[in-house]
Amino acid sequence: MRGNSFGHFFVLTGFGESHGAGLGAVVDGCPAGVSLTQDHIARALRRRRPGQSVLTSARAEKDTPEILSGVLDGRTLGTPIAVLVRNRDARSQDYRPNAYRTGHADRVWEQKYGFRDYRGGGRASGRETIARVIGGAIAEQALPNTVHIVAFARQIGHITPPPPDATLTRAQVDAYPSRCPDADADAAVTEELLRLREQGDSVGGVVELRIDGVPAGLGEPVFRKTKSELASAIMSIGAVTGISLGDAFTESLLPGSSYHIPFEGAPRGTDVRSYGIQGGITSGERIVLRAAIKPVSTLGSMARQGRHDPCIVPRIIPVIESMAALVLMDLWLAARLDRL
Amino acid sequence: MRGNSFGHFFVLTGFGESHGAGLGAVVDGCPAGVSLTQDHIARALRRRRPGQSVLTSARAEKDTPEILSGVLDGRTLGTPIAVLVRNRDARSQDYRPNAYRTGHADRVWEQKYGFRDYRGGGRASGRETIARVIGGAIAEQALPNTVHIVAFARQIGHITPPPPDATLTRAQVDAYPSRCPDADADAAVTEELLRLREQGDSVGGVVELRIDGVPAGLGEPVFRKTKSELASAIMSIGAVTGISLGDAFTESLLPGSSYHIPFEGAPRGTDVRSYGIQGGITSGERIVLRAAIKPVSTLGSMARQGRHDPCIVPRIIPVIESMAALVLMDLWLAARLDRL
Amino acid sequence: MRGNSFGHFFVLTGFGESHGAGLGAVVDGCPAGVSLTQDHIARALRRRRPGQSVLTSARAEKDTPEILSGVLDGRTLGTPIAVLVRNRDARSQDYRPNAYRTGHADRVWEQKYGFRDYRGGGRASGRETIARVIGGAIAEQALPNTVHIVAFARQIGHITPPPPDATLTRAQVDAYPSRCPDADADAAVTEELLRLREQGDSVGGVVELRIDGVPAGLGEPVFRKTKSELASAIMSIGAVTGISLGDAFTESLLPGSSYHIPFEGAPRGTDVRSYGIQGGITSGERIVLRAAIKPVSTLGSMARQGRHDPCIVPRIIPVIESMAALVLMDLWLAARLDRL
Amino acid sequence: MRGNSFGHFFVLTGFGESHGAGLGAVVDGCPAGVSLTQDHIARALRRRRPGQSVLTSARAEKDTPEILSGVLDGRTLGTPIAVLVRNRDARSQDYRPNAYRTGHADRVWEQKYGFRDYRGGGRASGRETIARVIGGAIAEQALPNTVHIVAFARQIGHITPPPPDATLTRAQVDAYPSRCPDADADAAVTEELLRLREQGDSVGGVVELRIDGVPAGLGEPVFRKTKSELASAIMSIGAVTGISLGDAFTESLLPGSSYHIPFEGAPRGTDVRSYGIQGGITSGERIVLRAAIKPVSTLGSMARQGRHDPCIVPRIIPVIESMAALVLMDLWLAARLDRL
Repeated sequence: MRGNSFGHFFVLTGFGESHGAGLGAVVDGCPAGVSLTQDHIARALRRRRPGQSVLTSARAEKDTPEILSGVLDGRTLGTPIAVLVRNRDARSQDYRPNAYRTGHADRVWEQKYGFRDYRGGGRASGRETIARVIGGAIAEQALPNTVHIVAFARQIGHITPPPPDATLTRAQVDAYPSRCPDADADAAVTEELLRLREQGDSVGGVVELRIDGVPAGLGEPVFRKTKSELASAIMSIGAVTGISLGDAFTESLLPGSSYHIPFEGAPRGTDVRSYGIQGGITSGERIVLRAAIKPVSTLGSMARQGRHDPCIVPRIIPVIESMAALVLMDLWLAARLDRL
Repeated sequence: MRGNSFGHFFVLTGFGESHGAGLGAVVDGCPAGVSLTQDHIARALRRRRPGQSVLTSARAEKDTPEILSGVLDGRTLGTPIAVLVRNRDARSQDYRPNAYRTGHADRVWEQKYGFRDYRGGGRASGRETIARVIGGAIAEQALPNTVHIVAFARQIGHITPPPPDATLTRAQVDAYPSRCPDADADAAVTEELLRLREQGDSVGGVVELRIDGVPAGLGEPVFRKTKSELASAIMSIGAVTGISLGDAFTESLLPGSSYHIPFEGAPRGTDVRSYGIQGGITSGERIVLRAAIKPVSTLGSMARQGRHDPCIVPRIIPVIESMAALVLMDLWLAARLDRL
Repeated sequence: MRGNSFGHFFVLTGFGESHGAGLGAVVDGCPAGVSLTQDHIARALRRRRPGQSVLTSARAEKDTPEILSGVLDGRTLGTPIAVLVRNRDARSQDYRPNAYRTGHADRVWEQKYGFRDYRGGGRASGRETIARVIGGAIAEQALPNTVHIVAFARQIGHITPPPPDATLTRAQVDAYPSRCPDADADAAVTEELLRLREQGDSVGGVVELRIDGVPAGLGEPVFRKTKSELASAIMSIGAVTGISLGDAFTESLLPGSSYHIPFEGAPRGTDVRSYGIQGGITSGERIVLRAAIKPVSTLGSMARQGRHDPCIVPRIIPVIESMAALVLMDLWLAARLDRL
Repeated sequence: MRGNSFGHFFVLTGFGESHGAGLGAVVDGCPAGVSLTQDHIARALRRRRPGQSVLTSARAEKDTPEILSGVLDGRTLGTPIAVLVRNRDARSQDYRPNAYRTGHADRVWEQKYGFRDYRGGGRASGRETIARVIGGAIAEQALPNTVHIVAFARQIGHITPPPPDATLTRAQVDAYPSRCPDADADAAVTEELLRLREQGDSVGGVVELRIDGVPAGLGEPVFRKTKSELASAIMSIGAVTGISLGDAFTESLLPGSSYHIPFEGAPRGTDVRSYGIQGGITSGERIVLRAAIKPVSTLGSMARQGRHDPCIVPRIIPVIESMAALVLMDLWLAARLDRL
């Protein structure tokens, strides 16, 4: 199947171009009986949308979702759930058909398909993440309520806040516009981003993702390991350029005797640095991943116009959480088939 | 589908346990007319198998492949290609059914399936990579002969060789047992690994993967981007704990104005740090990825017996190359469907 | 994947309930550069919709399609094509939540999902065929223009028109409300259906499907044979209860020496009664299939109200043609991958 | 995916050519904990293999299966189950590379793939059904033991035995070489087939399939209805040319008032002529299907040599049962995901 669907059991299919009629998602495979309303999805979309703070782009989309199918009286029917978000503030006239932009997909898209949607990136625009957030919101309603997924900015440019508390919640992260869950770091990042926007520059960072309460036994032993599914899901987000279990690129250089230490309090056989995944399968312990996020590629005068964020990290956080929810939901359903 | 198949158009299905009758692979979707013999596969398997040097485990498997179907007179028929490698040196009696080993999948496997194959890891053993190498060998025969895939050890423990030449070939890498393509570094690694084995310790490292000659236009714009497919493929290898485009975890902290620089000599719109992938789609430039490899988890007396490598990096290199070949083959076939 | 998607390369995903906000389809895998407008789809939908003649139900849906994505300036972009048809004349109040209707899916649906959409059949309503017709219309735009797909009523109840000419066209069939392409039979059927409606009764029939101009070499040799894909596609339509190559249930009783006769004028090795499919693969000759259509299950007073057709055959014809187009498109794309 | 795999949750992948090293199957998605031995599979293969009676071909294959993976101590591990059957009596020299045979796939295969395996049909040979029978045998071990699948010859040429008892068992059918479960009809068929062989002629027939004890709620409402999955599965067998629910081609001509009659003793809403499938979903009542089987296409002097059956019906019966088991297993697993 072509690349607009994600998942094997809980299948999200996204559609839409940034300056077409709208964007949307169809989820097939959501079990019947899940509580779901338009408001669940609207709340999730509000967390990703532009225009939330001084740091984010001025495109004034309301991004109001309409559930077209699959839900009756606040419960999923077991049929496909289609959700539509109409484009309203689509200023196609801002875009010139012929200029290839550095760091964008214009040229390769044209090589691939013979022509391209020149209106703001078309389907290659970041607006496609609307479908991911819709899918993630539905998955989070369906997942066991033990599951908690929290992502936050671990680093933005050269600013590294102290590692947050183990008990960090999504609400605590959302309290900071930079999504650095630390008052000083948040202030420093805000100042830095205002400075970068003025200069027409940008910056990237590292996001950390923590997942708690995942049942043991999810994931497949060979190709659809929990770690590879999460890697695929998160690396499919445009700005993500790297993914690691914990801080793998540093930790992998340790001697094995320092690397492999049993998880205190956990059952025999569990390894701290497995980060909740042994042999590809969830162990029930916390999953910890990091994602590298590249600097935004819109620079110079266009960036100064203030229609683009100088740092995409804050807005990518709910997208990363959504992709994690989609993966877990898919693997959780798959695990129902493990035993007779 | 469950997790023993990889790919959507060129589909590899692996099977086999480390101490069962054998391991094998079925490739469905290989076009007809590809030159293929048992010898192509045997040569690829020799590059991954134990017992190649002082650095690798003593399990004395010949790993001789038998092509069971799909090939006639040295050419693929368009039908499934099944390949079988029998287990010969399977000392099941070495394994005790009841002990869970730290860093292994024993416990989670039992939680998942209710019971487990206690014979040397069963399907969770590294021997499953035989199927990947078989699949990769077939993919490499089918891919355009412009495509060159080379992986090498970029770092092992604290030893970092100088960055190798841009023209590095697979034969040059294979000349060094450590797969560090530098005489001094190779000697230092060899010494270090002998010391670690004596101490019952181990070490990990970082592998770099370079892919040249890939046609522009491969990969899907949203979920099956070239980078996410490669991430999924390589992260599905047991010992891999991280994956990045270039050195993403460091480079993502640069300001956008330093990060985004046009590729000299390449068509307008190409970005050096896109590493051959723009918006998920190949641009025709070199693809560069890094993978973090964790230290081997077999430690102490069992490691000293010399049946396990103190460092898995050299043997993982052909597996990473194989997974890259499988991804490229799948995306290359998919791209045949892009235009009317 | 769950059962709301059809196809492997050209993938149609349908959504929607009969009395929800609307019904629609997403097609992923349509090549870029296909001519497509809203009008192509609207014309196809007009052929299936109720209210076309005295013989069809009075539900006054306009069924106006809106293309939400995937098309720019009258050409497909290579991205998912989403199409929405809003429900307008949805009289939910006509339906009582608790009554199970004979011949309907009410009871099994409730057993399956725990509850059901009681509003007119929900997703089990015949309105789901809107998605099939949308998908078929897109597939017909993309298929080579040599391909001609024509279905017609071969028999309705006890009325059997003479076998139509080999050159029968879709326009000729559409000229008859009963879709029996013969003036006398059409008149007889019309009279019969008016009588049945008055009596609150119904009738079924047999549809013949002819497909010409299909390239040789489509279809897979084992499980995805052209004949099995067509059987799956057409048997998935609610009212279809049987499918045969030609008149297989009669012809299979012939001795082999009468059954197997070479196709005159065709290349050596072609069999008349292969009906264009040898060993599962298209030979380039005309494909001929028949489908048995059961009598409508709404009977008695409800049928007499005139909101239901006494015979579904005429309205099923474009749905059968659409499913055939989807199958051929899928197999035609697949065949691009057959050879190196 | 290409056409050598069947199923979405319980996935059978077949491989092998009639005159290559062997044929086999890999089943991925079988739950852990199913009782399975080589003997279960060997018994199933004995029911399909040639050389069972005077009526069947003389190719003296033992068809001994070897389980290569996925089973430990008589129980499935949850990993892929690979089974290999080696070809032994493969007289390739009997086949001339250049002659296209009427009713065979030689010519289209060459058109499709550019060249073909000329050795006895290659993968297009009936020997591919070995994989189906292996898969079916595993599925039958895994299905609830309430499920009973019995197929029998309902008609062979002009000989129609009386309809068998409702309680007919597989053992009762196997007692008759013709698989007509009636002593007189069996004798008449045997005589007829000996006569046909002498004349170098052949004959087809109709097989009836009865499935009892299927849980209610299996099947998907739209594209993967139980009836369409069964149609696809059974129509994918080479000799099958038609499939119907009950005797659909005759019954569909009844008026609705005669066709739709409630199932006595069954819950309200069940229809006798739904044959166990309402709106695509199983109701718990008996499923009844018929399949048209075309006459064998090997005629004349080659048929007289006695290496080919004059009638394939008896040997197709276990293949039809196997395909039914595969479909039910797939839908039974899918149904585990229906509700939260």
